[in-house]
Amino acid sequence: MRNSIQLTLPDWAPAFIASYPSHLSTLQDRLYFVLALTRKNIEAKTGGPFGAAVFETKSGKLISVGVNRVISEQISSAHAEVMALSFAQKKLETYDLGSSGLPEHQLVVNAHMCAMCLGAVCWSGIKSVVYSATSRDVEKITGFDEGPLPENTHSALSSRGIAVTGPFMEKEGIDVLQLYVKEGGVIYNARS
Amino acid sequence: MRNSIQLTLPDWAPAFIASYPSHLSTLQDRLYFVLALTRKNIEAKTGGPFGAAVFETKSGKLISVGVNRVISEQISSAHAEVMALSFAQKKLETYDLGSSGLPEHQLVVNAHMCAMCLGAVCWSGIKSVVYSATSRDVEKITGFDEGPLPENTHSALSSRGIAVTGPFMEKEGIDVLQLYVKEGGVIYNARS
Repeated sequence: MRNSIQLTLPDWAPAFIASYPSHLSTLQDRLYFVLALTRKNIEAKTGGPFGAAVFETKSGKLISVGVNRVISEQISSAHAEVMALSFAQKKLETYDLGSSGLPEHQLVVNAHMCAMCLGAVCWSGIKSVVYSATSRDVEKITGFDEGPLPENTHSALSSRGIAVTGPFMEKEGIDVLQLYVKEGGVIYNARS
Repeated sequence: MRNSIQLTLPDWAPAFIASYPSHLSTLQDRLYFVLALTRKNIEAKTGGPFGAAVFETKSGKLISVGVNRVISEQISSAHAEVMALSFAQKKLETYDLGSSGLPEHQLVVNAHMCAMCLGAVCWSGIKSVVYSATSRDVEKITGFDEGPLPENTHSALSSRGIAVTGPFMEKEGIDVLQLYVKEGGVIYNARS
């Protein structure tokens, strides 16, 4: 039995990141970046229509990115949020992005978190989440199941010290989801 | 920026697995295995008090194991369930453990899934989950937050074709959680 496995970003990721400034100061710029990242993942056919990035909240410094890699990595937990959070934690050498001594960190995603990623955010030390498309957009447009979300996701997170903002630039988020469907992207595990 | 990260089981894992039969036919045997796995993770100080294993449901063939590796790997999503599911998927070369052509698979855990792992199970293709200690046991004994679980976790999973059984051998599950506290194990991200 193997004793380790890898989580890998697409080959195009480093050049994509290098083509942007190291800091993105506005929420709008951060979301444009994440939407472009997601679009690239769709067009390159390197994963599902989901992208995420971790920023230092105040400075806008980009810490890490993640894209959906479920099919390419053959790991169902390889969602964009889990990837971005894990890469940020490895980079900063801490499982807690909210640990004292660190600046606050923010997760920006093209679409609202699924049930798994909502839980993942809770353990990550992230202090805020910004999303574009809603869970309803995701389920209606793509057919992906968002899973058993708790009744009120925003209060579930705010009671744990995590602020959630969205939908923000929803129209642009919807466009990206529609692109995936138009390109014939695989909708996996959409069982009822 | 790095383009890949690793998820690694403890060094003792291969020898531990090799000391057991390749197939465990009863639920009780599977849970004893997972409880011993968790106990080993605590005693070796290689992670939190959580262990999991994926079996072929009918034959009892052991496919993979996972233990909590949050602190050792510096990844907050490195929970036992996510590890076991990811290793099983890599081994069988599919992100869907429920895909046609495969026998049914079962996840056995020492304690009820947290919010993240509940979602992770939904995407994994697992058909059944068996657990020992309850979420209340975990929160009461260790102080770990289980996160924003949906109202009725069992019906949330059964409506997605996943049967949940537990608590089963709860006393033994509680003993393992208590061992972690007694050994002074770290309780991380237990913020309110």
